[in-house]
Amino acid sequence: MLVSELGEFGIIAHINAQIKRENLPLAPIWDNVIIAIGDDTAVIRNTKEWELATTDCLVQNVHFNLETITWEELGWKAIAVNLSDIGAMGGIPRYALISLTIPPATTVANITELYNGMITIANEFGVAIIGGNIAAASYLAIHVTLLGTSLNKKVLTRAAAKPGDLIGLTGYTGISAAGLAMLNGKLSFEPATIQMLRQAHLKPIPRIREGQLLNSLGITTAIDISDGLIADLTHICETSKVSAVIKEAALPVHPVLKEEFTKSCMNLILSGGEDYELLFTATSARMTRALQMLQGKITVIGKITDQQANPVTIVTPDGKSKRLIHPGWDHFKPK
Amino acid sequence: MLVSELGEFGIIAHINAQIKRENLPLAPIWDNVIIAIGDDTAVIRNTKEWELATTDCLVQNVHFNLETITWEELGWKAIAVNLSDIGAMGGIPRYALISLTIPPATTVANITELYNGMITIANEFGVAIIGGNIAAASYLAIHVTLLGTSLNKKVLTRAAAKPGDLIGLTGYTGISAAGLAMLNGKLSFEPATIQMLRQAHLKPIPRIREGQLLNSLGITTAIDISDGLIADLTHICETSKVSAVIKEAALPVHPVLKEEFTKSCMNLILSGGEDYELLFTATSARMTRALQMLQGKITVIGKITDQQANPVTIVTPDGKSKRLIHPGWDHFKPK
Repeated sequence: MLVSELGEFGIIAHINAQIKRENLPLAPIWDNVIIAIGDDTAVIRNTKEWELATTDCLVQNVHFNLETITWEELGWKAIAVNLSDIGAMGGIPRYALISLTIPPATTVANITELYNGMITIANEFGVAIIGGNIAAASYLAIHVTLLGTSLNKKVLTRAAAKPGDLIGLTGYTGISAAGLAMLNGKLSFEPATIQMLRQAHLKPIPRIREGQLLNSLGITTAIDISDGLIADLTHICETSKVSAVIKEAALPVHPVLKEEFTKSCMNLILSGGEDYELLFTATSARMTRALQMLQGKITVIGKITDQQANPVTIVTPDGKSKRLIHPGWDHFKPK
Repeated sequence: MLVSELGEFGIIAHINAQIKRENLPLAPIWDNVIIAIGDDTAVIRNTKEWELATTDCLVQNVHFNLETITWEELGWKAIAVNLSDIGAMGGIPRYALISLTIPPATTVANITELYNGMITIANEFGVAIIGGNIAAASYLAIHVTLLGTSLNKKVLTRAAAKPGDLIGLTGYTGISAAGLAMLNGKLSFEPATIQMLRQAHLKPIPRIREGQLLNSLGITTAIDISDGLIADLTHICETSKVSAVIKEAALPVHPVLKEEFTKSCMNLILSGGEDYELLFTATSARMTRALQMLQGKITVIGKITDQQANPVTIVTPDGKSKRLIHPGWDHFKPK
């Protein structure tokens, strides 16, 4: 069977099962592993605080195109997508390691700009870039590993959603995918719109503070939206063994999507990936506190139910239930 | 200027300077960083023990060729080259994260074999594979980040060599490069020789126990041989601001190199990379203890001197000094 038939999440499940089967019983180090494969970051027990470890990569002509992203934006984004995973655990980012493959025809100025982008966001979030590796290759790839710590031995996971929880979302979804559509389609807008869409797609702001705040409020479930709102909500539902009902009318719609992407608007909101917003679930009382503290930054979009046949149901404004058509991004099963 | 003009180590120095200049002053997290870019692993302060973090990658058609390596060997080697960096610090390996890019036409059986190789060596050295990432790409690449801890807050670094130290080497050098020559040149040998050379190149054994033992003996300087004996000795000399004199007659010569690679033998020993043996320096008293404990596994090959114009001088059997011609592997300045 080809990996393209099994799909990205099938491969991950396959590897996870193999490691659990063949590795777990043998090494005592596993006693310290609180969360392994299957969440936004791994979590390991340490003397005082838990440690978080996560890795993600950006690969030329897969995740980015040098015709539409600057080297500085690329450096920012490579760190941002990893920070987002620490944010989704409500953790504190600490150290980064960078493994690069770069074509020999790259200029030193390119590398300087790349690291400028990385250093800028690292400074912004208190991260030290402590090591890495460089190899020559025919394509550019930036693999980042980010280490962090938990907040008082508490983390937000995908596995803690309970029936009755409300579903909250920071910010807007769909604008990163709209930015990608603009860049690829060379679409023309007002300068402010171009700037906003470009930033949404190329320089996402990881929700580190928001994740820490949710964690400190006693909220226990979150994921960052990298694959798409519905795809990532499905990850929560499958891991927590629950289902979710989303009210389409409750979804936050960015004015630019409404105006400039009218036809594809709802599809972008539900299935556009790389927003790096936080999707979380909370009891009604905790959601109220979150709404008070992160005023105007959180929208309640639905609620968690007992597990149903469909992990996610979307209720349209006319009240009819509908199921999603586009399930989000899978690296091995492109739409 | 192109990165190919600056060279691999020039780029690393450039990035290191940029990070030191622009990042260090801002983030308090840097107070916990004991060793950053420039050694085998980064070292960070923790509550009880120091943490080690290192990353390395294997990229298709750069580091390996699927016509000559099996998927299982590839999995082993991807972890082994990272373990070797923890070994070179005398540390204890703990956790691994795997960031893969794989072509969609890869089979699930390939992935199973790859992880079989990774799990086998992870079990052998008590490592837990706790996370990772998978992305589709046109080529296979395996980026591994390995986390570990120090032994009693002591690490072997590249920076501690002192004039008067003896230079020790575990095992043999050159047989990995000979193995590569065999695989690429389709050379024909006795089955036992083929097996030995294949293992040396494709399934190297990282010197974890040896590094820990050297560390526990109070030895403070080591590097693993990935770029080549002279190249890696040069790294020690430059970082420690010393020079080294190697006696050609003292170098361990594997019988297979002597017999089957007679003409290129000394060149392979001095410049062949990917041996993953440990090169270390120690006072005479500590070297004596190391020789006693690791009987037959260590050879004294020379000594450290005050810094000279040439970092490394090789004394030929006839007593004439000579300087090296092939400085070892640089990703951006191939030989």
